[in-house]
Amino acid sequence: MFPTPTQHRLPQGLIQVYTGNGKGKTTAALGLALRAVGHGLKVIMIQFMKGWQYIGEKRASEYLPNFEIKQFGREDFVNPKKPDKVDIELAQSALSFAEQTIMSGHYDVVILDEVNVAIHYGLIDVNSVISIIKNKPRTVEIILTGRYAPKEIIELADLVTEMKEIKHPYKKNILARAGIDY
Amino acid sequence: MFPTPTQHRLPQGLIQVYTGNGKGKTTAALGLALRAVGHGLKVIMIQFMKGWQYIGEKRASEYLPNFEIKQFGREDFVNPKKPDKVDIELAQSALSFAEQTIMSGHYDVVILDEVNVAIHYGLIDVNSVISIIKNKPRTVEIILTGRYAPKEIIELADLVTEMKEIKHPYKKNILARAGIDY
Repeated sequence: MFPTPTQHRLPQGLIQVYTGNGKGKTTAALGLALRAVGHGLKVIMIQFMKGWQYIGEKRASEYLPNFEIKQFGREDFVNPKKPDKVDIELAQSALSFAEQTIMSGHYDVVILDEVNVAIHYGLIDVNSVISIIKNKPRTVEIILTGRYAPKEIIELADLVTEMKEIKHPYKKNILARAGIDY
Repeated sequence: MFPTPTQHRLPQGLIQVYTGNGKGKTTAALGLALRAVGHGLKVIMIQFMKGWQYIGEKRASEYLPNFEIKQFGREDFVNPKKPDKVDIELAQSALSFAEQTIMSGHYDVVILDEVNVAIHYGLIDVNSVISIIKNKPRTVEIILTGRYAPKEIIELADLVTEMKEIKHPYKKNILARAGIDY
């Protein structure tokens, strides 16, 4: 159909952050994964605080070569005021896994989905995340998503986009929809 | 692998807009496409003012069932001050095609990529776009991307996210990279 992708490494991997209160953060990371896969790059999305199998991206990732989604979370939402012990353990496992994955150099793009929220909720420590990012192999691109990106991560990042909610249908009593919101 | 998707129609299709000067608009639409495909929905992205074949999303779309990308544009950039006659023709063909596609009801999600910019550059008329959106079948979701979303479209939309640039590596002299920016 199209020529075999020739590119298998980015010349230089950057740090990207998608934050803010608007829709489109995880979705932009997924789009980026799709695009990267189209150029023959190897991508992994590590999801913090997500454990629900019935999400479109997880199902769709099965179609794509070189794209994996690995979830660390329960099906329920984390209570920000009082996270469960298991939420903390899962987030810390996610972070250890992220570190190994990044350091392995087997992936060109590593997406830490909702990592900003996991930091904000106190499940993981911002300094551990910073230290992993700072030690990443040169060619690895790291994408961090989620509201509440801490200022230390914004400072370190090369690209930061704030997704700002201008209008949202939840305000019109339309709930999350399969295929669009998950 | 996973159960055959049972959902083939959205209960109600909305109008979503991704605009602003930050990175992540087309990418969010692509991520949305990936997610929708994972739930068995049928998706098409109609690209205004884009004609370059060597983009990751076009290549990756070949892997996915029920996802098509149709380009209407030249390889070169459109000159906003003085668009070429062919640019106007191509954008108008894109709009006619969009209308047919939306009305056909064969697609659950129709993405009009960079349509906001095509309007802003005067290649197509905002009222024609509005009229198509207003007459869409109930179950069809429409996503409009691009900077400079006109206020008429923002008013009509159910969901609007502004992608706001906080930091961009172009400022560090890093150019567009295959697999990440296209």
